[in-house]
Amino acid sequence: MAYRETEKMRQRKAMARQKIVDCTYACVSDGGFRSARITRIAALADVATGTIYRHFESREDLFAEVFRLATQREVDKVAEALATEGDVTARLEHALRQFAERAIRGPVMAWSLIAEPVDPKVEEERLKYRRAYAALFEGAIREGIQNQCIPDQDASQSSTCLVGAIAESLVGPLSPAQADGNVSIAAEDKDRLVNSIIRFCMQGLTGARN
Amino acid sequence: MAYRETEKMRQRKAMARQKIVDCTYACVSDGGFRSARITRIAALADVATGTIYRHFESREDLFAEVFRLATQREVDKVAEALATEGDVTARLEHALRQFAERAIRGPVMAWSLIAEPVDPKVEEERLKYRRAYAALFEGAIREGIQNQCIPDQDASQSSTCLVGAIAESLVGPLSPAQADGNVSIAAEDKDRLVNSIIRFCMQGLTGARN
Repeated sequence: MAYRETEKMRQRKAMARQKIVDCTYACVSDGGFRSARITRIAALADVATGTIYRHFESREDLFAEVFRLATQREVDKVAEALATEGDVTARLEHALRQFAERAIRGPVMAWSLIAEPVDPKVEEERLKYRRAYAALFEGAIREGIQNQCIPDQDASQSSTCLVGAIAESLVGPLSPAQADGNVSIAAEDKDRLVNSIIRFCMQGLTGARN
Repeated sequence: MAYRETEKMRQRKAMARQKIVDCTYACVSDGGFRSARITRIAALADVATGTIYRHFESREDLFAEVFRLATQREVDKVAEALATEGDVTARLEHALRQFAERAIRGPVMAWSLIAEPVDPKVEEERLKYRRAYAALFEGAIREGIQNQCIPDQDASQSSTCLVGAIAESLVGPLSPAQADGNVSIAAEDKDRLVNSIIRFCMQGLTGARN
């Protein structure tokens, strides 16, 4: 008789896998990918290190999954912000502002998603997700061009400029949090930082003093 | 009698090391870091693979050195463009244009320097060099603010926006060259691409329609 996985076994396996992912996620939020050692994850998830490798081929695969999970949340937030009613430039500004503010609120995780040197598998995911962000911005820019509230331009190129500008300009401000644990950015610095990024981005798009 | 390295031995060692670096550089220019396998580099440099590890602790160290060498050339070009005479906005525009045009002329190497998923050591170098570019732009932006040809702004933040916008917006256009060998970008597409990046960047900085 062939071995068959029962429904209950499948559920238990899925739950164990989920717990490993959740614990890795917690480690990364707390100290970046570099702090997410397999022994630490195993201890947190209360499993043997070998168990982790029954669920994931490698540490890199586990990291890539956690990266996708965490980044997809941010992509969804941008999509939500862009899907609201009203003026498309206001929605773009809102989406950019939200992205920056969320990053500043969770600076360790944000730094890990945007800039932490990890491994090629995570880098591949980064490239993919940058395209996902750009695709969202591109749609909004096209809409703005059509409605004549954004000057005619190459929407695809401008969308990648937005993604690059906002990501790169957060790397520096988020770095200390990564280096020293959860150092938070002072509220007034935060506002100044976010405003200066938004200004550059919106001016870049519209050519109007912001 | 203690073993002493003679001057001649030192020179031969330095030359052998240089040849390994040059051959790796050639491989990366031709097909990215992923094509720069140690066996291939050894064959090109006409040495045994073990010899490479006498000069470099690891493949990652060799890659990091080639990355630094290639990126420093680009940083120097930006520095030169910014150090010329004349209006600072024109110099900034010239530096950005030159960066983009050089990338398009050597798309495989440019993609490898800007975006190829490699390993954490190369990623560390990427972060450092992005700061080097930003520092150059920041100096020019400060000068422009002082001369009142650029509106007052956080020069440090804007410099990182420039670095992010120009790098990210080149990733997509450079990717096919990486995937399919040295596919070149058509001259008219090249101009349109470069102009659209420059426009976004200069508008972002100045808030004036470009």
